[in-house]
Amino acid sequence: MAGEFDFIEWIRSQTLSSPMVRVGPGDDLAVMDWGKDLLVVGADQVLDGVHFDSKVHSPREIGRKAMNRNLSDCAAMACMPAAAVATVALPRGGGVEYAKELYLGLREAADPFSCPIVGGDTASWEGKLAVSVTILAHCFREPVTRGGAKAGDAIYVTGPLGGSFLGRHMSFVPRVVLAQQLVQACEVSSMIDLSDGLSRDLKQICDQSRVGAVLHADAIPIHDDAQRMFRLDRRSPLDHALHDGEDYELLFTSPEFESAVARRIGTIVEEPGMWLESMKAREPLEPRAWEHGL
Amino acid sequence: MAGEFDFIEWIRSQTLSSPMVRVGPGDDLAVMDWGKDLLVVGADQVLDGVHFDSKVHSPREIGRKAMNRNLSDCAAMACMPAAAVATVALPRGGGVEYAKELYLGLREAADPFSCPIVGGDTASWEGKLAVSVTILAHCFREPVTRGGAKAGDAIYVTGPLGGSFLGRHMSFVPRVVLAQQLVQACEVSSMIDLSDGLSRDLKQICDQSRVGAVLHADAIPIHDDAQRMFRLDRRSPLDHALHDGEDYELLFTSPEFESAVARRIGTIVEEPGMWLESMKAREPLEPRAWEHGL
Repeated sequence: MAGEFDFIEWIRSQTLSSPMVRVGPGDDLAVMDWGKDLLVVGADQVLDGVHFDSKVHSPREIGRKAMNRNLSDCAAMACMPAAAVATVALPRGGGVEYAKELYLGLREAADPFSCPIVGGDTASWEGKLAVSVTILAHCFREPVTRGGAKAGDAIYVTGPLGGSFLGRHMSFVPRVVLAQQLVQACEVSSMIDLSDGLSRDLKQICDQSRVGAVLHADAIPIHDDAQRMFRLDRRSPLDHALHDGEDYELLFTSPEFESAVARRIGTIVEEPGMWLESMKAREPLEPRAWEHGL
Repeated sequence: MAGEFDFIEWIRSQTLSSPMVRVGPGDDLAVMDWGKDLLVVGADQVLDGVHFDSKVHSPREIGRKAMNRNLSDCAAMACMPAAAVATVALPRGGGVEYAKELYLGLREAADPFSCPIVGGDTASWEGKLAVSVTILAHCFREPVTRGGAKAGDAIYVTGPLGGSFLGRHMSFVPRVVLAQQLVQACEVSSMIDLSDGLSRDLKQICDQSRVGAVLHADAIPIHDDAQRMFRLDRRSPLDHALHDGEDYELLFTSPEFESAVARRIGTIVEEPGMWLESMKAREPLEPRAWEHGL
């Protein structure tokens, strides 16, 4: 079955080049010229049964996640959120209090960044809850894309990975401020936020930078949640860290070999492909996580 | 039951003023400062069973309508579309060809305006089709809002109204170019696109301009589709023209009493309220159309 990533590839092939558009579909966000300034923009949605469960999660939590996913995209490009718009498709009869709670969740996530919600649309339907957020961001230096990694660069991650579906995927803190600190402290050659899983997101960096990557299995920071998941499903904690997704940590590359705030987990290599290296062996690493079939 | 318009009112009351935001929630689009330029932005969605019927309408038509609704919002503020982003929630198993057709529909509507789709997100779910589009627009003069109508202004509409649900609501042409011609040819004090119905949308202008309006029943241009609807449901063609919605013509006010491209249908008055005047009588006009209950 054709999946999300083939479809994104097709959209990229269909996109006409435009003099205003510096970075088009396929990165975390698009980058455009807007007068003499840069405008960074992108959209992401959360859907009932895919990104949250409306029977389990409160509207406040759902609103927060919808906004935080977009703020995490800003972090991935080292941009500062400036404004958001949101559309909400609300199950009919859900009530205005539910809609208000959703809106307050969106606001709770956006307010710390002085990022106003300037517009949108709410409609009810005989369908399930869907929340779509578009984020507008400022970039005060050249935005960091997925396409700048070079052979020899070190690969870093900003926090422990795996098992986020135990709850962290609803309550993560987008790494907006940390991203600013990173680009001020060191040269960041490429960056992405870990939404689809380390193996899948690293492949995005490799494909768009036309390079390969070797990860050091022992260096990958593993979250306690990945240990807890192992006890539930007997998939190894490392496997969870590599493939689970929705960690919302930053994965980045840098020619510098030390970082005060991130953990080095591997090296960019010239040969296309991905490998996982341990004391025992070097094995090919396949992207496994989280692809939406269409 | 609390409805969409109460909710929008509540959101407006919740929105903090921001020095960057010139026009916030509640108009067709928001207007922000972006560097030395203006940025006009808004989002609108189309939902299966509300704005289209996926059993009847092709994905190409649905994509076109999703984009055209947003382009129509640009027209309402006399802005020129610059770029769009879109999210699509696709019923699982719908297939990549369906997703491509939707995208091509979005593009078919946007391409005539050199408005690239610069980003977005497509995901499949166990739900119905929802398409959300965010539009970014340029404004080369002060944008026209809903709030500038003055007592004594004439009220105009750019085309015949009513019965659009017979098919026109899927195939309308957004009045982007016409809006540019209008603002160059005459002083436009307020404007809105007719999506919710003449009575409802005129009330938006009245409320935000703090004025009232008198419509001349005989002057309201009635579409043939409103006549056809009358034969189906025995509601008068005038009633359809006043309340049906989804006409996507422009409703605007101007201190000038002649227009080469629009039909004069009434006058703005000082006293808040709306009235419908005919040879026989002057009756209060209640907004009736198209409000989503929440």
